[in-house]
Amino acid sequence: MLIYKDRRANTARRSLCYDTFTYLWTKKTNLQMKSLASDNYAGAVPEVMHALQRENEAHATAYGNDTTTAHLKQLLQSLTNRQFHLHLAFNGTGANVLALSTLVKPYQAILCAETAHIYVDESTAPETLSGCRLIPLPINDAGKLDPATIRRAVKRRGDLHHPQITVLSITQPTEYGTLYTLAELQAIRQVAKENDLLLHIDGSRLFTALTALGCELKDIVEASGVDALSLGGTKSGMLYGEAVLIFNEAVHDSAFYHKRSMQLASKSRFIAAQFLALLHENTYKKYAEIVLQRTQRLAEVLKKYPSVTITKPVEVNAIFAKFPADWIRPLQETLLFYVWDESNHEVRLMCSFDTSEEEIDLFDRKLAELSR
Amino acid sequence: MLIYKDRRANTARRSLCYDTFTYLWTKKTNLQMKSLASDNYAGAVPEVMHALQRENEAHATAYGNDTTTAHLKQLLQSLTNRQFHLHLAFNGTGANVLALSTLVKPYQAILCAETAHIYVDESTAPETLSGCRLIPLPINDAGKLDPATIRRAVKRRGDLHHPQITVLSITQPTEYGTLYTLAELQAIRQVAKENDLLLHIDGSRLFTALTALGCELKDIVEASGVDALSLGGTKSGMLYGEAVLIFNEAVHDSAFYHKRSMQLASKSRFIAAQFLALLHENTYKKYAEIVLQRTQRLAEVLKKYPSVTITKPVEVNAIFAKFPADWIRPLQETLLFYVWDESNHEVRLMCSFDTSEEEIDLFDRKLAELSR
Amino acid sequence: MLIYKDRRANTARRSLCYDTFTYLWTKKTNLQMKSLASDNYAGAVPEVMHALQRENEAHATAYGNDTTTAHLKQLLQSLTNRQFHLHLAFNGTGANVLALSTLVKPYQAILCAETAHIYVDESTAPETLSGCRLIPLPINDAGKLDPATIRRAVKRRGDLHHPQITVLSITQPTEYGTLYTLAELQAIRQVAKENDLLLHIDGSRLFTALTALGCELKDIVEASGVDALSLGGTKSGMLYGEAVLIFNEAVHDSAFYHKRSMQLASKSRFIAAQFLALLHENTYKKYAEIVLQRTQRLAEVLKKYPSVTITKPVEVNAIFAKFPADWIRPLQETLLFYVWDESNHEVRLMCSFDTSEEEIDLFDRKLAELSR
Amino acid sequence: MLIYKDRRANTARRSLCYDTFTYLWTKKTNLQMKSLASDNYAGAVPEVMHALQRENEAHATAYGNDTTTAHLKQLLQSLTNRQFHLHLAFNGTGANVLALSTLVKPYQAILCAETAHIYVDESTAPETLSGCRLIPLPINDAGKLDPATIRRAVKRRGDLHHPQITVLSITQPTEYGTLYTLAELQAIRQVAKENDLLLHIDGSRLFTALTALGCELKDIVEASGVDALSLGGTKSGMLYGEAVLIFNEAVHDSAFYHKRSMQLASKSRFIAAQFLALLHENTYKKYAEIVLQRTQRLAEVLKKYPSVTITKPVEVNAIFAKFPADWIRPLQETLLFYVWDESNHEVRLMCSFDTSEEEIDLFDRKLAELSR
Repeated sequence: MLIYKDRRANTARRSLCYDTFTYLWTKKTNLQMKSLASDNYAGAVPEVMHALQRENEAHATAYGNDTTTAHLKQLLQSLTNRQFHLHLAFNGTGANVLALSTLVKPYQAILCAETAHIYVDESTAPETLSGCRLIPLPINDAGKLDPATIRRAVKRRGDLHHPQITVLSITQPTEYGTLYTLAELQAIRQVAKENDLLLHIDGSRLFTALTALGCELKDIVEASGVDALSLGGTKSGMLYGEAVLIFNEAVHDSAFYHKRSMQLASKSRFIAAQFLALLHENTYKKYAEIVLQRTQRLAEVLKKYPSVTITKPVEVNAIFAKFPADWIRPLQETLLFYVWDESNHEVRLMCSFDTSEEEIDLFDRKLAELSR
Repeated sequence: MLIYKDRRANTARRSLCYDTFTYLWTKKTNLQMKSLASDNYAGAVPEVMHALQRENEAHATAYGNDTTTAHLKQLLQSLTNRQFHLHLAFNGTGANVLALSTLVKPYQAILCAETAHIYVDESTAPETLSGCRLIPLPINDAGKLDPATIRRAVKRRGDLHHPQITVLSITQPTEYGTLYTLAELQAIRQVAKENDLLLHIDGSRLFTALTALGCELKDIVEASGVDALSLGGTKSGMLYGEAVLIFNEAVHDSAFYHKRSMQLASKSRFIAAQFLALLHENTYKKYAEIVLQRTQRLAEVLKKYPSVTITKPVEVNAIFAKFPADWIRPLQETLLFYVWDESNHEVRLMCSFDTSEEEIDLFDRKLAELSR
Repeated sequence: MLIYKDRRANTARRSLCYDTFTYLWTKKTNLQMKSLASDNYAGAVPEVMHALQRENEAHATAYGNDTTTAHLKQLLQSLTNRQFHLHLAFNGTGANVLALSTLVKPYQAILCAETAHIYVDESTAPETLSGCRLIPLPINDAGKLDPATIRRAVKRRGDLHHPQITVLSITQPTEYGTLYTLAELQAIRQVAKENDLLLHIDGSRLFTALTALGCELKDIVEASGVDALSLGGTKSGMLYGEAVLIFNEAVHDSAFYHKRSMQLASKSRFIAAQFLALLHENTYKKYAEIVLQRTQRLAEVLKKYPSVTITKPVEVNAIFAKFPADWIRPLQETLLFYVWDESNHEVRLMCSFDTSEEEIDLFDRKLAELSR
Repeated sequence: MLIYKDRRANTARRSLCYDTFTYLWTKKTNLQMKSLASDNYAGAVPEVMHALQRENEAHATAYGNDTTTAHLKQLLQSLTNRQFHLHLAFNGTGANVLALSTLVKPYQAILCAETAHIYVDESTAPETLSGCRLIPLPINDAGKLDPATIRRAVKRRGDLHHPQITVLSITQPTEYGTLYTLAELQAIRQVAKENDLLLHIDGSRLFTALTALGCELKDIVEASGVDALSLGGTKSGMLYGEAVLIFNEAVHDSAFYHKRSMQLASKSRFIAAQFLALLHENTYKKYAEIVLQRTQRLAEVLKKYPSVTITKPVEVNAIFAKFPADWIRPLQETLLFYVWDESNHEVRLMCSFDTSEEEIDLFDRKLAELSR
């Protein structure tokens, strides 16, 4: 199995990199080393682990018919000012695919960014479960979809030969670590409304987005008019677990899609308990602030070195940057990270809730050494 | 959402029971009450919780490319004396559907018991992901499939108008809480071989089966010649997580089916860690022995009362029994359980690793009171 | 490819029979021999061939947007007293699968007879296009579904773990060559209504059924309250072509399912022209009467021989009968037919619109010779 | 249902055009008017109609097990110098989807031109039956795929998160009415081989391509190394019917996909008979030469008018051209055709085997009148 993901590398080059990467990791793993590889290399925050322990003290009804889940639903309703169907899922792919499948019929199509996780990192699960075509759209320099791009993509409505474009899926924050502002979400809402599109938001890192934007969940929900939201837990400090909120009032049967998508946990309450831990006293904000600070700090470090170029806006916890080719290996030996684009030595550095000042200092010292 | 499952009840009666059940549960839930409703109402065993804590101390590569998972695979290989592809999944439905999907082409069919979980409790997920027909077969009184039944079901091979029967799926232990003996598994292997059938075993409670049969994992694997095994964790004391072992040597690409089935966890190592906790020093046996003892003890209690009839062999942790109609409600108020068949007052009592002697005594006292 | 279909034979025996059958056919084929094998071994009636010639004289808009199709729709509306969406399809499997797919969501299930064409002769196409489970029901001695059987099959409504039973599909005439009376259709309608089931009728030989029952299309539509009807052309004297009539008013988008099912012909008007030929001056009845007479005549012939037993009611153009084992081969050499059940020497004799008196006499003489 | 297809028009404009078009057609239809709208507005050539009549004189085994089909297979083998599985299908969508489904597993992806019929005119049928992602590639000015484009598109092989790119589908002639030369097909073969891609050719107008290129079927097969070929009949003068030839030797079970795709006709021999009529004494070439001549003649006519621009190479039977905006309506009233791109007044003129000199003269006179 490959762990090295270069979206643009060809096979030969990729497997080489894979070997290198595995080798590096194996050497370091005994050191309990952290990395800048992905925020899902981290574990869970302490509050989440405590919540699991507490929830484990008693029996409860399976499949989401428990008081912990009821409590979570109530809390999310107050945080969104809205009614919805709540479905707890295991992972991001499951949450996205479940959310989309509730909105569509099998002769329809879903618009998304060509970089969207549902398009490039979920195998053919979206097609298999929704029955629909995914149509990739070009992104702008900030990794976002422009309203004009969406408008142009809506074609051949009513023409039965062509998949009927019905849903728009956006990612917040995007795969480039950038953010749709509330104003941009309102513009998306407008273009969706004008073109009779339902809106799905893949919010696998939405808690970080809320913190970075300084807004609340209800602001996102209101601005975007989202029909189905994937609210991520795994990348925000949970062991596992995502939530799907179906706001669209025409959808009455999403519970059946939940089971069909194989995302209904028997001991579902343990996912609810983790979310409650993140939401309790704004725990998620505490960790999001840490990760945002660390990311900005790391960006400051990079900016000190003229040979390093930051290539995309740094708005959440990812930094895309270009290094001199021969720096990459020694830097990866210091703190692991992925090469994003081999052809131009662009790498992705990803901070987690537990990225420490010491690690950034370590990276800084290595950069200093290399730039000498 | 319904929590009451009577496989034979019609709609009207079922919803009545549902209301009753919810009411009962709500009343009791504050007492941290345990139940005889299902083994997935329990949480996780302490060893599993400790393993999660330990695994949480470091970063590791995502998606199963970590040393914990590698360790688990090595251990399972030594326990089965076989090579296989290991895929960790979130839940039983996911594990079964993933396992089946790797074995088939979309014009084929899968034989299973008419009571099989894949047939009656997994929505249309098996069809959606495998593309195949499921063909239900009648079970014998012990809830098992007879070789003769399987042989008769293999029809129209090579006839392109009919789904091509290719896979046989059995459940060990069965949905009736009974066990295929090793000799019965050998007979299944024989009939599968004679009819060119691949074998899937749904082993969502296989750890309990091993303990009840006094055998090891490799005995089951050898006796049955299983091609794809779903090895359950959730019902054996894990918070979540199942393992799929693909033994069939012709299957080279199961990893792609793993991702497509939306069962690939990013923080997959936490599932591996839980399995390692169960396997370490035979922890799973310790708890399986407890649950088997408790179940036998409860069966002994029931046998004291002439108005109570045990209706199926008690071989693992389920007891099917008939009570006088007016006993059911007061007994459910004592310790919750499901009515299996409303038409004849047959109920299912399910013990968990944490069912206590005190609870059985409590149930006994209630029975005594009712039988006076 | 196999042409021999014994639903109950095992592989070894079946391939033997297949070889025999191929051999027989090859020997006879130069004689322009007719057969009693299937009504789809025949070609088209002369009126249909003339209609194709006439339709071929001009251009017309493709994909059903032509005046011939519009004319057919108008005619069928007057014959049914109902509004519907009309979709012309290529073959019976396509028509059935299209019809079903418009009625369902992918977490649902479809009830049908265990002998239904959609269950035993359409590969996994129904599951693939509808996304649903097919649930086979036992038939009565006449090959029909009893209302009580249907009622008992409706289970676990609202229980999201189980495929939601939503559609009932019946075949008129049945695979046993028997007919639901109008009263029986009314009873089916009643049980469907009481259980919130939508009704599909597979009417691949419906024109013959109308003639045999002495009723009109609107009588079937009214009695049954059918939601989606597959109206067969191929087995009633067309070269190819079936019609799907979607009566259910809640279905607005069946045209999209039509294209998706790959059953939308570009030169669709040639299917419409063939149907118009069958409907014009009751041409279909003329041929149906011939085939019904021939079938009854053949049944009379069989009854003369005490060693021959007719096993099912003879109501349309199929006769199921048991012959002495050693008669089958010489009879097949006289006029080819299929063995239905090898285990008890039951065969199926199928008359076509062009089965002649001479052929029946020929068969009679062979029977006389064998019975000596 | 819409008959007007403007790939780029938005909804509002398109429905306007649709009304216009219907109106025009209705006015003209009584005149048995031909059109330049599409080659599937025509009927069948006389040789095909005669073949249907002859084939209708006898019974034959259903589902392709007949001597007519055997004869066709033998003939196609001699014409291709190759062994293959032959599957007769009803229509182009069915043929393409069947062909693709035999080559893939459900976690894979299929590369095709962004203009490919399988991408823009077959609803979601390709995804539904193959289970795969379709990935659209940009075309060059001639509407063809460049090898470099294909090479760049092959990404993330072995990365289980991404659909695995396995098949390349090209259209010959293309949707722009252009042709891959034999040298270009060899280059495609090379890039496919280097990247482990299987090749599908959508040849719905391949007979015309053969004639235009002055080559034989075996030249195309050899040059391209095609694994699965859709060989069109409907657009080359048949009433209905396409052939799928599976050359790939690793595919042993395509017959089962044939039935599953709902493209297996019971009276399949009538499709075979039509193909035999086209192939007999090069009948297909006779009509292809006519259509090619007429198309060139029409192109010559257009070139006389400086206000008219031919926008794409004219290589088979389609002409893409730009007219002054106010000419379109009066020209459509003379001979119907589709507007391809409303935004720049580009139209598509499509000749059929029965487009006459008189019709071209008529169009010429109208152009002359408009250009005055």
